Amino acid sequence: MSYVLYYSPGAASMPVHWMLIELGVPFEARLTDIDAGRQRDPEYLRLNPSGRVPTLVVDGMPRHESAALLMLLAERHPDGALAPAPGTPERGAWFEWMVFLANTMLPAMRDWFYAASDGDPAGAAGVRALAVRRIEAACARLDAHFAAGHDYLVGGRLSTADLLALVLLRWTRNMPRPATSGWPHLTAYIRRLRALPSFIEVNEREGLTEWRNDG
Amino acid sequence: MSYVLYYSPGAASMPVHWMLIELGVPFEARLTDIDAGRQRDPEYLRLNPSGRVPTLVVDGMPRHESAALLMLLAERHPDGALAPAPGTPERGAWFEWMVFLANTMLPAMRDWFYAASDGDPAGAAGVRALAVRRIEAACARLDAHFAAGHDYLVGGRLSTADLLALVLLRWTRNMPRPATSGWPHLTAYIRRLRALPSFIEVNEREGLTEWRNDG
Repeated sequence: MSYVLYYSPGAASMPVHWMLIELGVPFEARLTDIDAGRQRDPEYLRLNPSGRVPTLVVDGMPRHESAALLMLLAERHPDGALAPAPGTPERGAWFEWMVFLANTMLPAMRDWFYAASDGDPAGAAGVRALAVRRIEAACARLDAHFAAGHDYLVGGRLSTADLLALVLLRWTRNMPRPATSGWPHLTAYIRRLRALPSFIEVNEREGLTEWRNDG
Repeated sequence: MSYVLYYSPGAASMPVHWMLIELGVPFEARLTDIDAGRQRDPEYLRLNPSGRVPTLVVDGMPRHESAALLMLLAERHPDGALAPAPGTPERGAWFEWMVFLANTMLPAMRDWFYAASDGDPAGAAGVRALAVRRIEAACARLDAHFAAGHDYLVGGRLSTADLLALVLLRWTRNMPRPATSGWPHLTAYIRRLRALPSFIEVNEREGLTEWRNDG
């Protein structure tokens, strides 16, 4: 199995980068700095016509969508145990959290950051206001889940859902209400996951210094 | 394996209802009419606190999110062949299409239909304008895929991605530009899928008469 990851620091590529490190599988990482516009280079657009990160080239085939890549990697590396095994009662909950994060929290994040460039700038304030409402509702839902005594999203152990959730929660750090403000159970979860060696490692490899337990 | 599906005609429950029929597995369908507000009944909220359809009770456990349910059912019923098998080259494409439909097209649909109730009505026009732009971009992307000679989204045969896509496309029928207007390859795909006996059957069971090949 061969993997080449095209990533940009702290972007939607981060959970995939983190997962590859956590799994301990060999991969090549290629920086595609979206702040510098590298995702619009013709060479990159051949790999990903939508001009977004991540792209993960899997055995020679470029694949996209972070939630999809996490599920694919979990299936290809069952020994890593980053998803409940097929046939277990937790399997349905895992699919459900992955899709919830992908179809509710992630699109609201896109609205928050890109409302004025994806759409008409005149309507951006309304789009961003709804995005904040949805992101805060998602944080409250996560907080309630952890308040009920869970340490992780699914099955009592780390899974791809946690990797995706933590990166999305990281993006709230400069929002009106960051995920670490006023949701104590969610904050404890964030601090627990940020202490993982693989999370510390992905921050170092991506050159990120914000939003660390020691920062 | 036991299944109880809570559905509302033509809603996000429709691809799951269709899939259960296509698989030919036993299930019980319970009408939860969202136009009549039945999703806010206390009894239903115990099964699904977010008050949305579908809920699929899988071996006694309520599960949600249509894209998640489609993936779970595909895994539980491999003989139905509604997803490429794990380990095949098409598997990555299947995850990618499922996530794309769930995180791009489906949230834009929610914005179109619910902007004024999910958010501040004053911002709804901006939200809906961006939603239409995204839905039309998704239709163009699908049209380009079929223009390239594909009959289905993944692997040359029917999969859960087609079931989800067709129901999302059905929701465009009263939008400014329905999916059947000006995207000829997409229109041919729609007509092909609408001819499937299981699609005709799910329309009959849900009492739907619009957007059929004979309508």
